[in-house]
Amino acid sequence: MTDPDMSLHMTRDEFRKRGHEIVDWIADYWDRVETLPVRSAVEPGDIRAMLPDRAPAEGEDWDAIIKDIETIVMPGITHWQSPGWFGYFPANVSGPSVLGELLSSGLGVQGMLWSTSPACTEIETHVMDWLVEMLGLPDRFLSSGQGGGVIQDTASSAVLCALLAARDRSEDGRAAVAYASTQTHSSVEKAARIAGLGSDGMRAIAVDAAYAMDPAALRAAMATDRDAGLAPAFVCATLGTTSSHAFDPLPAIAEVCVEFGAWLHVDAAHAGTAALCNEFRGMNVGLEHADSYCFNPHKWMFTNFDCDCFWVADRRALLRSLSILPEYLRNAPTDSGAVIDYRDWHVPLGRRFRALKLWFVIRHYGVAGLKHHVRQHVAWAQEFAGWVEAVEDWEVVAPAPLNLVCFRHRGGDEVNERIMNTVNDEGRVFLTHTKLDGRFTLRLSVGQTHTERRHVELAWERLQAAAGQLPVAS
Amino acid sequence: MTDPDMSLHMTRDEFRKRGHEIVDWIADYWDRVETLPVRSAVEPGDIRAMLPDRAPAEGEDWDAIIKDIETIVMPGITHWQSPGWFGYFPANVSGPSVLGELLSSGLGVQGMLWSTSPACTEIETHVMDWLVEMLGLPDRFLSSGQGGGVIQDTASSAVLCALLAARDRSEDGRAAVAYASTQTHSSVEKAARIAGLGSDGMRAIAVDAAYAMDPAALRAAMATDRDAGLAPAFVCATLGTTSSHAFDPLPAIAEVCVEFGAWLHVDAAHAGTAALCNEFRGMNVGLEHADSYCFNPHKWMFTNFDCDCFWVADRRALLRSLSILPEYLRNAPTDSGAVIDYRDWHVPLGRRFRALKLWFVIRHYGVAGLKHHVRQHVAWAQEFAGWVEAVEDWEVVAPAPLNLVCFRHRGGDEVNERIMNTVNDEGRVFLTHTKLDGRFTLRLSVGQTHTERRHVELAWERLQAAAGQLPVAS
Repeated sequence: MTDPDMSLHMTRDEFRKRGHEIVDWIADYWDRVETLPVRSAVEPGDIRAMLPDRAPAEGEDWDAIIKDIETIVMPGITHWQSPGWFGYFPANVSGPSVLGELLSSGLGVQGMLWSTSPACTEIETHVMDWLVEMLGLPDRFLSSGQGGGVIQDTASSAVLCALLAARDRSEDGRAAVAYASTQTHSSVEKAARIAGLGSDGMRAIAVDAAYAMDPAALRAAMATDRDAGLAPAFVCATLGTTSSHAFDPLPAIAEVCVEFGAWLHVDAAHAGTAALCNEFRGMNVGLEHADSYCFNPHKWMFTNFDCDCFWVADRRALLRSLSILPEYLRNAPTDSGAVIDYRDWHVPLGRRFRALKLWFVIRHYGVAGLKHHVRQHVAWAQEFAGWVEAVEDWEVVAPAPLNLVCFRHRGGDEVNERIMNTVNDEGRVFLTHTKLDGRFTLRLSVGQTHTERRHVELAWERLQAAAGQLPVAS
Repeated sequence: MTDPDMSLHMTRDEFRKRGHEIVDWIADYWDRVETLPVRSAVEPGDIRAMLPDRAPAEGEDWDAIIKDIETIVMPGITHWQSPGWFGYFPANVSGPSVLGELLSSGLGVQGMLWSTSPACTEIETHVMDWLVEMLGLPDRFLSSGQGGGVIQDTASSAVLCALLAARDRSEDGRAAVAYASTQTHSSVEKAARIAGLGSDGMRAIAVDAAYAMDPAALRAAMATDRDAGLAPAFVCATLGTTSSHAFDPLPAIAEVCVEFGAWLHVDAAHAGTAALCNEFRGMNVGLEHADSYCFNPHKWMFTNFDCDCFWVADRRALLRSLSILPEYLRNAPTDSGAVIDYRDWHVPLGRRFRALKLWFVIRHYGVAGLKHHVRQHVAWAQEFAGWVEAVEDWEVVAPAPLNLVCFRHRGGDEVNERIMNTVNDEGRVFLTHTKLDGRFTLRLSVGQTHTERRHVELAWERLQAAAGQLPVAS
């Protein structure tokens, strides 16, 4: 870059230097994150108060920018990568994944069409086919048949695309209705709103004692709607609900879907990763009847957000809903019909090369390595559930087959809320809550990259300590 | 990581080593990208044929993974970062942006709620407020009032969110109708389909000789629909259409929108960056009446995909359409109402820390630095247009006020298509086409980070050479 016109871009030497610095900063961060309070302690507005009112008129020095990572960014970080992270769901990242995302950034390609970077599309299709075998998914999701997989940003977008395909497939003048259990993620209701199903277009189906969808209630609701002249078009079953990791009974739900000709979408955003291991693959029984399926490597498979893997059994239904080809995007490979143009598989037109990080993760760990870590997380969560069950004051309050445990102190809602707040205020571990049967319930989700068994022990120790400090009712 | 349980994760030392390697690889790539054929030459299936049929059972060595970047990935890359990239639209990346994305990957936070990492939300809100001033946007988009900005993945998602807010605001039993010009990006039609407006819910409004929307035709269409009992709910005006960079007349369109109570969304995905410069800010006249606006730093502001900046004048309308609060996401700051939870501002629930790269870019370049490069791109495109106009066999066929020039050889459609294919086959520069008034039209879009004036000269030289080799009709 000897051209003075180019002089305001970062020089290559500066990029190398600062790039190495940030790589090293990340390595150091992962080493020290255990020592940082998991939850940020700032109050609303604290971070903004440190920022200048106006953008800088002239470019700033990189020493100042790097310095602000510690002074401005870090106080406002709640550390999802802490080994003491047991909140919400995992969002575990890894070295191989960060390197894949970095390479994708540097290449800076737009994968909207096959022709705008064939590797971006073909590695994605290929890795998605790999995953069908890795997870024991039905062959109908393979790209070699009528199906195929695509990386979406999130499970929210995936369920929206599935619902759109279902809505348009059923179009016959009757209003489409969507069904999910009362425990289903809010993304399904959001998708129904977006798709214009209207306030009357979504049914929340009752669950059984294990918080799993009741297929008889589903059948009854669909029959009522059909009799009322509506089109029962779409069912979302969940493998591992967000709230309590309930598993909806796929075979029975699939039977109902077949009966009504409804699209069956299966959301395994968090728990799906466990199907890597043969001993947890039972969850997939019935999946051979699903029209679409998703799970999130960005939750529990060491892959940076965003990376949701979404498959359909019949890609034509998806394309019918989402494909529009303006002249300025026409090209010979697209016209030939021999290639996949992923822009027609989701809401956005543009897309980055997200398959790189997934490819790197799978190659670094190998299937065996991924299984190893998933098994560890499950084993530690199971140990934790055992510890809770072994103490009289505490109880496990929902089936916990994998890495999420829902539990309570027997002292009641206020006691549990105070226990959670006490533990989170300490900052060594972090948990979040849900409500089950109307009662305040603690959740322990085990799945961060840096979590070891000793951190799960620490969580149980801090919970017990917090309970001991409280006037307990029992 | 002395715990043997953790032994399959990448070691910190390996991460540092490989991270430095990939940073250096990117720097080297940006240096050599000029020497690579811009368009990938592979055939469908070539990349997949190099990949093993099954995922590796055991983890692979990083030397093998790094080696495959050259052998498998690179042949399938169409080099958007080439200085000879003049296709579609710019997707320019920069060192500061790649570093911001890298830091975001390493931190691995989920910004779905303010409380899940306050810095992720507050830096975003703040930088979006900075941009209101930087671009001369109306104050009503500032977060200090009823409005505010959010980073979306793409302009496609932004227009969808705007349309949903408009659809739900107008809900009164009448079917909502959306309007855009015949030249509007296909994302608006896609959004209308997604939102369930139905095949009759979208009107393509005629354009004038400059390919800009005809406000009289818009008014007539809306009046017809209103008289037919429909609700004219949403208008998308474009500043810089994808096809030819036409600018829809905002003041007149805004007047029509006020008359019908319709939501006015303004899409400036590509051209919006030019408003950094006072001399191009005339495009914003009338924007004070817009309900929403977006532009893409991931197109022309040196920021990695994805980064679309979307503002609304009344955030309550957006939240009404997209906000759902399940128990497991409840937290004290959200309940207080004192914070922004960006999950309610777009389709996905999860979100990464995208504001970091935008903040780094603005701080590195400063406002002056960004203006400098934008002015250069415009000046070079204007020079190119002058060269085309100066030669008898060629013509500029649409107004070219900024960095996109639509032009043609006078030899007819086949000649232009062959010129384009010849130039693209050579591989030193890359152009794409559109159709204007039914005629095959070449487009030159100037805006990549590594493009210098000499590359624009090269494009013109190669085009003329390609034309000289052809049996020209004129």
